[in-house]
Amino acid sequence: MLKVVGMGPGELRAASSEAVAAVEEAQVVVGYSTYLRPLGRLLEGREVVASSMMKEVERCRIALERAAAGERVALISGGDAGIYGMAGLVLELCRERGLVPGRHLSLEVIPGIPALSAGAALLGAPLMHDFAVVSLSDLLTPWEVIERRIEGAAAADFVLVIYNPRSRRRQWQLGRAREVILRHRSPETPVGMVKRAYREGQEVVVSSLAELPEEAVDMQTILFVGNSRSWSWQGLMVTPRGYGDKYRL
Amino acid sequence: MLKVVGMGPGELRAASSEAVAAVEEAQVVVGYSTYLRPLGRLLEGREVVASSMMKEVERCRIALERAAAGERVALISGGDAGIYGMAGLVLELCRERGLVPGRHLSLEVIPGIPALSAGAALLGAPLMHDFAVVSLSDLLTPWEVIERRIEGAAAADFVLVIYNPRSRRRQWQLGRAREVILRHRSPETPVGMVKRAYREGQEVVVSSLAELPEEAVDMQTILFVGNSRSWSWQGLMVTPRGYGDKYRL
Repeated sequence: MLKVVGMGPGELRAASSEAVAAVEEAQVVVGYSTYLRPLGRLLEGREVVASSMMKEVERCRIALERAAAGERVALISGGDAGIYGMAGLVLELCRERGLVPGRHLSLEVIPGIPALSAGAALLGAPLMHDFAVVSLSDLLTPWEVIERRIEGAAAADFVLVIYNPRSRRRQWQLGRAREVILRHRSPETPVGMVKRAYREGQEVVVSSLAELPEEAVDMQTILFVGNSRSWSWQGLMVTPRGYGDKYRL
Repeated sequence: MLKVVGMGPGELRAASSEAVAAVEEAQVVVGYSTYLRPLGRLLEGREVVASSMMKEVERCRIALERAAAGERVALISGGDAGIYGMAGLVLELCRERGLVPGRHLSLEVIPGIPALSAGAALLGAPLMHDFAVVSLSDLLTPWEVIERRIEGAAAADFVLVIYNPRSRRRQWQLGRAREVILRHRSPETPVGMVKRAYREGQEVVVSSLAELPEEAVDMQTILFVGNSRSWSWQGLMVTPRGYGDKYRL
């Protein structure tokens, strides 16, 4: 039995009781060490298989093999396992190996609060209207595909949520993305920057497309670019839904 | 003190402990009656202000007024209060009235598991790659804006998550959206349909753009339209991240 569990961002207070129960019921807990740390005492009495970053395929393989052998396994993701997380890779491996969920093993995905929800809550309410979520990581996706998506989302006036905006090795992508967005949106458009949401060292800054401090953006940052109607006020960022047009507030 | 609280989808098992604590600490709990029901015994000993749907502005006004008068208020949203939820309306009202959070009242948004995460978990892993979220409700947004977003997202090969796809009063919009998407995507593209996620009467169906049973779609349904690489298998829906191109699975 395998449960792919999203623990929510950072601390355990953001985890659902279903996610906590999934860990408590597991014999084996598999995960990237950073995401296991907040589990703390929940891990006591369980076999823990911790691995470093970039070992996603290995982690999923181990989790699947142990589950197929009859053990109760929890595979841990930070945030939501279903958004750029482990759930898809587990299912790709299942199909590859002909392991049919429900027949050859029991498989469940337990959703968690995604980073985009945590970041939005800290900023105010940037996601009150249609939004598009794009990862700038071109490790697994060609840059042309990413740029086309940014352009499409910007042209159609979506709020943009940007995952993996910049890392030590990927420096130019964010600047390029900003150029593309600026073809369609004013330099004053608010940009929310959330770093390490719900964790030690949390930072929340509302800036603008013109003034975004790119060098402060890292792999632990998630960015929110407003649509043409988003506003910032008192350090908060809001995208109105449209109530003000229809009703007297 | 006002907390705008996302309780996650359906039952309390999907709520974070932070959300539960926010209700427990409140003197007054305000919400749409459907979202209050799962709280059950959590509401005991608290003043409850329940209202019917379509009274969002009234609900937020009451919550703000009570909080500004010094009471501890929890304003309840299903799913995530930050995604088409109450958080934005509360902040619009704050700005309108010059109530500055942190100065005139304490205001916190507590994120919850959004419907898109719950639906994705039940379908498998449709959101492993870039996705766009669009509401088909044209009550507050002109249809031209919505259609332009659907077209933009479809053309840029985003997975599409469709909120409020169809109601008794809004029948033609879904068919029109499907036509627009079909200009850019094959009729075999998988479409996941999740109804009443985590609640009684939950339904999960994987179909395709060609075969989507439109008349079965209602206001409690959320739809997931795959990108050009999404696949369905054994009743599950997956959008690959790209590991299979780079690594041997």
